[in-house]
Amino acid sequence: MNFSYFNPTHLYFEQNCVAAHPEAFRGWGRRALLVTGRHSARANGSLDAVCQVLESQGISWSLFDQTIPNPTLASVRQGIAFLKEEQANFVIGIGGGSPMDTAKAIAFLACQDLPDAAVFDSRQYQDKVLPLLMVPTTAGTGSEVTPYAVLMNEAAHSKSSISTPWLYPRAAFLDPQYTWNVGLATTRWTAIDALSHSVEGILSQKGDPMITALALDGIRAFGQCREALLSGKFTPETRERLLYASLLGGLVLAHTSTTVVHAMGYSLTYYKEIPHGRANGLCLGGYMELVQKTHPQPVDAIREALGLPDLAAFREFLDRLLGEREPVTEEEILLFSQEASGRRNIPNSLVPPTPEQVAAIYREGFRRP
Amino acid sequence: MNFSYFNPTHLYFEQNCVAAHPEAFRGWGRRALLVTGRHSARANGSLDAVCQVLESQGISWSLFDQTIPNPTLASVRQGIAFLKEEQANFVIGIGGGSPMDTAKAIAFLACQDLPDAAVFDSRQYQDKVLPLLMVPTTAGTGSEVTPYAVLMNEAAHSKSSISTPWLYPRAAFLDPQYTWNVGLATTRWTAIDALSHSVEGILSQKGDPMITALALDGIRAFGQCREALLSGKFTPETRERLLYASLLGGLVLAHTSTTVVHAMGYSLTYYKEIPHGRANGLCLGGYMELVQKTHPQPVDAIREALGLPDLAAFREFLDRLLGEREPVTEEEILLFSQEASGRRNIPNSLVPPTPEQVAAIYREGFRRP
Repeated sequence: MNFSYFNPTHLYFEQNCVAAHPEAFRGWGRRALLVTGRHSARANGSLDAVCQVLESQGISWSLFDQTIPNPTLASVRQGIAFLKEEQANFVIGIGGGSPMDTAKAIAFLACQDLPDAAVFDSRQYQDKVLPLLMVPTTAGTGSEVTPYAVLMNEAAHSKSSISTPWLYPRAAFLDPQYTWNVGLATTRWTAIDALSHSVEGILSQKGDPMITALALDGIRAFGQCREALLSGKFTPETRERLLYASLLGGLVLAHTSTTVVHAMGYSLTYYKEIPHGRANGLCLGGYMELVQKTHPQPVDAIREALGLPDLAAFREFLDRLLGEREPVTEEEILLFSQEASGRRNIPNSLVPPTPEQVAAIYREGFRRP
Repeated sequence: MNFSYFNPTHLYFEQNCVAAHPEAFRGWGRRALLVTGRHSARANGSLDAVCQVLESQGISWSLFDQTIPNPTLASVRQGIAFLKEEQANFVIGIGGGSPMDTAKAIAFLACQDLPDAAVFDSRQYQDKVLPLLMVPTTAGTGSEVTPYAVLMNEAAHSKSSISTPWLYPRAAFLDPQYTWNVGLATTRWTAIDALSHSVEGILSQKGDPMITALALDGIRAFGQCREALLSGKFTPETRERLLYASLLGGLVLAHTSTTVVHAMGYSLTYYKEIPHGRANGLCLGGYMELVQKTHPQPVDAIREALGLPDLAAFREFLDRLLGEREPVTEEEILLFSQEASGRRNIPNSLVPPTPEQVAAIYREGFRRP
């Protein structure tokens, strides 16, 4: 046993937790920058709840609702300019992964003096950040508890992470209500993303007993939602479980970071605009099968937590969930394999695959069920 | 699901973790106060390791080795006077629960202006503390990750806690080597204490899914050491598992605090000088049986994690471990029951027992096997 652990984010998991914990919004600054997407934070009530609690505490706010899906550095720079104009001194991210990652990047890069080319180079970071609070409204990214902000990285043909402990949010407010009306596709792909974080954490070089205990509980919660994910019929209880699975996936991810599954998924999102969680789902089963050959025990623990009799049953479940696959050419697969094989998540895999094995996992993932 | 979670302590669990993480000792101050007991920190190598790493970082230190078992406020005041004389600006606790709790109380009370009568009244606390680092050398208390410092409280005929998030240590260095030569009795009683933290966490009003996942993993680790605890033959692996069980018990305790088991144990330590963990052990089985009558599910999960077929088998194991009981009179039992029933851990119990039920648990605990 040889591990470390650190996660300073204060978690609140509860219906109406924003309104219930006004004290948690105090002490960070006099003016908040609220970072959201265009619509959902308004529609699901999260933006209103945050504005009300801020007003009740005499804290003013400015709204930056220009977040784009798969945020770019340019969109973050735009947010920083707005933050400075508005003289906000802390940042609240409200939404899915894109608004939260944008909020984190704004809060951090606003305090740094980094040219674009140095943004992903942690050796150049200074120990400064604006306080960050997070209100997730999808169940998948786990960004509310991680030290990462993931942005599109044109130079790397991929997504890349700003990664520093200064990105840990001070607090995260997880209210399952905000996820009740998330559409079916987004619910499925974000759920797979959450599952993938927990599975990859166990099947990474940085897995350890404590993180495995958390990951297996997240996988267990996902497992209890399998039928709902297939049927598309969600109760408040399944929504709550998916948010819980996402939170635990985030805690795992914060500690272990990701493996070949995310490395491979990034190419699919960059080149083919396949949503992040779905992209991971296309690669997850193949990686688990690869690991099982030499490390059956952890794969078996995952399978058991999912409540499934064998790995084949999991792959069948994934096949049904992913449905019809995008068309992909052998040329694309070779390009993606080459690029994915150079990413730093590969050596973090418990079983780092060769480029040929990466290509085989891609091929199999795109085979129609 | 309705919970919060916060634990900002940076954990290092690893053989030689003190030497391996010199960076974790930097940035807290120029002079450390090292708080230890008289002997064990010298004998097990932990004091040397800390001194060496401090010297390598150019940090000076002063040694306060006057910690007493079951520390009192007077002993803490003595430590504060020494800290001020020596102009130390951060505190490192090295040892079992008593040195760690003394270190925590010194670091906190040195920054407060509290008369003795107000020490346990959190409404009077100011938001100030000296940075705290912890090096546990027994596997039980979990104090290295909790926001509590437990001191004898003569006025309450009990132990009482200073309880404030400011007591969370900045970092904890868990090196199983330091526990290798802990004596059999201390190993047993501290292990029961660790088990009790996890069991009580699940069987408390504040139990939640995330904390239960951690607690069950701690209980599982304890369960793997049952034979070693009975035989008194420990390998490096069982020592490591016991330290892991203690860590997880501490994380649970930090979140849920304790229940009737600790409330009852405190009287046994105060009046009969029964070691803290053993005192809890005398009451633990009876509380689990009481809970099982109305809440069989969580008790069953605990039993399963222990690797035992039923609760009777657990009680038999505890009986063997506790061995011959101290003599106790019916008069004492009635006094202890009355005092324990007034403590604030009682309403935190998942099933808060009546004073009569408390007395029955005491009686049964002292019945010779």
